[in-house]
Amino acid sequence: MNGEQMAATENLGVLYGVGVGPGDPGLVTLRAVDVIRRSTTVAYPVQREGAASRALETVRQHLDASSRLLPLVMPMTRDKERLGAAHAAAVQALVEAASDGNDVACLALGDPLFYSTFGYLAERFPGRVEVVSGVSAMSAMAAAVGRPLAAGDMPTVVVTGFDHEALEAALGMNASIVIIKPRSLSAQSLDLMEKAGAWDRSRAALELGSPEERIIQRLDRRSIGDLPYFSVVWINPTRTGDI
Amino acid sequence: MNGEQMAATENLGVLYGVGVGPGDPGLVTLRAVDVIRRSTTVAYPVQREGAASRALETVRQHLDASSRLLPLVMPMTRDKERLGAAHAAAVQALVEAASDGNDVACLALGDPLFYSTFGYLAERFPGRVEVVSGVSAMSAMAAAVGRPLAAGDMPTVVVTGFDHEALEAALGMNASIVIIKPRSLSAQSLDLMEKAGAWDRSRAALELGSPEERIIQRLDRRSIGDLPYFSVVWINPTRTGDI
Repeated sequence: MNGEQMAATENLGVLYGVGVGPGDPGLVTLRAVDVIRRSTTVAYPVQREGAASRALETVRQHLDASSRLLPLVMPMTRDKERLGAAHAAAVQALVEAASDGNDVACLALGDPLFYSTFGYLAERFPGRVEVVSGVSAMSAMAAAVGRPLAAGDMPTVVVTGFDHEALEAALGMNASIVIIKPRSLSAQSLDLMEKAGAWDRSRAALELGSPEERIIQRLDRRSIGDLPYFSVVWINPTRTGDI
Repeated sequence: MNGEQMAATENLGVLYGVGVGPGDPGLVTLRAVDVIRRSTTVAYPVQREGAASRALETVRQHLDASSRLLPLVMPMTRDKERLGAAHAAAVQALVEAASDGNDVACLALGDPLFYSTFGYLAERFPGRVEVVSGVSAMSAMAAAVGRPLAAGDMPTVVVTGFDHEALEAALGMNASIVIIKPRSLSAQSLDLMEKAGAWDRSRAALELGSPEERIIQRLDRRSIGDLPYFSVVWINPTRTGDI
């Protein structure tokens, strides 16, 4: 780091990771609104340049004419090199926006520290980072279904569709299971779910937090493959215990 | 149900389960404020008659002189008979408050459908129930620590201190592990945590959402027994993966 960069880093504003909840403008917290209003720049993830951002739409009513908008391109890929380059470019843009002591609100759907890209950016940001927690998509899913995600001593397991071993462990422990990125479930994982009798106790939540929010009951092999990227699958335990 | 009761049930207002988040007034959602302001009655759990309610304190600034306050005694016990009686009495009080079409906002710390008593009340309420999701204590814990609860493909497992088998499964799956009611961990569970080398990667969050919020790093057998009832323990995975 040369002297000029160091000086710039020393005078950085705060990077706020602002959870905006599942996408429903009513589920934004009072602090999120306050931080968004006070920050010079509002950054938000987009899948590609010019694309819409659900996080931004969720809080649009709280922006004013002076808010500087900063889209951060976060490609939907597991290619570590492409992701690394995207994260580095995003951090660079955040540092520039935070120069001269200007605070930046970086929006995240759900909670910024729960399966969110924000964690990667925060780790690499050379200044002060603060997090405004948000309502998670799985909470919104339980509300849409109208039953507890977990109660009593029931364990809850959250896995991504990529982790077959974790899914196997979860199915063995009679837990309330949440699968994120369910479209990534392998044929092997789908076999396992079939064997465990998981279809009858499965649901998927689509477009959570939007007016198009929808719950599909009792999935099967075919319907699970047709789910949009951002859906969440929920498998209830075999024994409901005292829920 | 006799005719009179049926008529009362038919004219019941809506029972709202309102998540107020971890206890920080800034982490209350816009919809929670709106529902609390519009409801005739604001109900909230207390451990015994006359006791303070953290949920109520979290939203006190949004109450006005016309809000009717309804404490619901929820004893901290695992005695099913006592719990059942407490739930029945609470539902009865909620039905009375909701008569004549009056809406009731029933407050819950965190999220009403995630390890909350509200699930039991909702199940037994004979009218329409709606849920306003809230920020969970585990999100607030991650924010207080300043690192992701989970990222990438890392599984997350939430267990209560009572469930030894679930804890064992969780320790075997290299997950981000959250233990609620950690004071209930058995000697057997503590042995297991010791054997798994969990102390070095453990933290506890106390008084989350309050000005007394505190993080204890690296627990041990003794310190875990001294934790207050409402603390949350977090065990990080052995291999941090791409977090």
